[in-house]
Amino acid sequence: MSPTALVIIADGSEEIEAVVVIDVLRRAGVYVTVAGLTDDVTVTCSRNVKIQPDVNIATAAKNVPYDVIILPGGLKGANAMSKATSVKDLLTDQDKSCRLIGAICAAPMVLKSHDIGAGRNVTSYPAFKDELSEMFVYNDYDVVVDGHVVTSRGPGTAMKFALKVVRLLCGDDVTNTTASALLFKL
Amino acid sequence: MSPTALVIIADGSEEIEAVVVIDVLRRAGVYVTVAGLTDDVTVTCSRNVKIQPDVNIATAAKNVPYDVIILPGGLKGANAMSKATSVKDLLTDQDKSCRLIGAICAAPMVLKSHDIGAGRNVTSYPAFKDELSEMFVYNDYDVVVDGHVVTSRGPGTAMKFALKVVRLLCGDDVTNTTASALLFKL
Ligand SMILES: [Cu+]
Repeated sequence: MSPTALVIIADGSEEIEAVVVIDVLRRAGVYVTVAGLTDDVTVTCSRNVKIQPDVNIATAAKNVPYDVIILPGGLKGANAMSKATSVKDLLTDQDKSCRLIGAICAAPMVLKSHDIGAGRNVTSYPAFKDELSEMFVYNDYDVVVDGHVVTSRGPGTAMKFALKVVRLLCGDDVTNTTASALLFKL
Repeated sequence: MSPTALVIIADGSEEIEAVVVIDVLRRAGVYVTVAGLTDDVTVTCSRNVKIQPDVNIATAAKNVPYDVIILPGGLKGANAMSKATSVKDLLTDQDKSCRLIGAICAAPMVLKSHDIGAGRNVTSYPAFKDELSEMFVYNDYDVVVDGHVVTSRGPGTAMKFALKVVRLLCGDDVTNTTASALLFKL
């Protein structure tokens, strides 16, 4: 059976981070559900790219578990996720079961808000280093894996982040084939 | 005044290539119009990401000239653009005026179909090398600029391609600032 992924997007999510993750995971054969944080038919991302999610988060929550839940960055989108109990519930359950959680750019702040992964090694967009250092061990690498928590830094590291998630879910062969087809040098 | 860009998308366009270009150019201050090739409200990209264009191509054509017209790849999307007289008309006018044309992945095949840029240096997704070599001088670099024609290879080179277009439109300072904010190493 294919591994499954849930990618949550909200108004203000960073579109490169969202779309790179969705596309790369689908190329690798992961069954990806794109969930909108609200019931809106269209999500307006941080640079005004308008994306239509597959489902809303309430529907997505009925189909747990997912092998990975991924949160793209974009400050406004991440802030909305930080305030959403729907996201807290999904992440808390995912964390208790030690299933993968991915967060990039501003999204590691969502983990902090929902008290996920205290003490773990993480990275993020550099602007959040101080706030994240209060709860996590902060690193400057492009992608950081600590147990079932995978974090990364920004649009420029999104493909490396997506391929790391592919490596954890699908193994080395699928990862190398996917990276080659993308013409991405790992 | 801000430079202007037209990005054309169609069902089957590669979503990473489309979104990276749109996002990076907007970050650099370029005024980007995303035009759908048909009148459909939603474009379904190659890995099923659904994007809502800003306008259809007929509306976009009323607002010429654009400082750059960019075609993302994705074979099915590129094939549709190869058959579209609306795209031929826009590209022919853009080419005659020596304004920038960008094409990535499968999209250099659209240039071939519409007889744009014969004899120029280009690159593309490697699969199209033989067909493109009939009309262009084929290169294996990630991004190739020859006059007002800029080409690139695939999703893994999309950010470098977008930043090259930024460099041509906005200069070195804006390019370096934009790349830094993306956390992308040029
Ligand atoms: Cu961000």
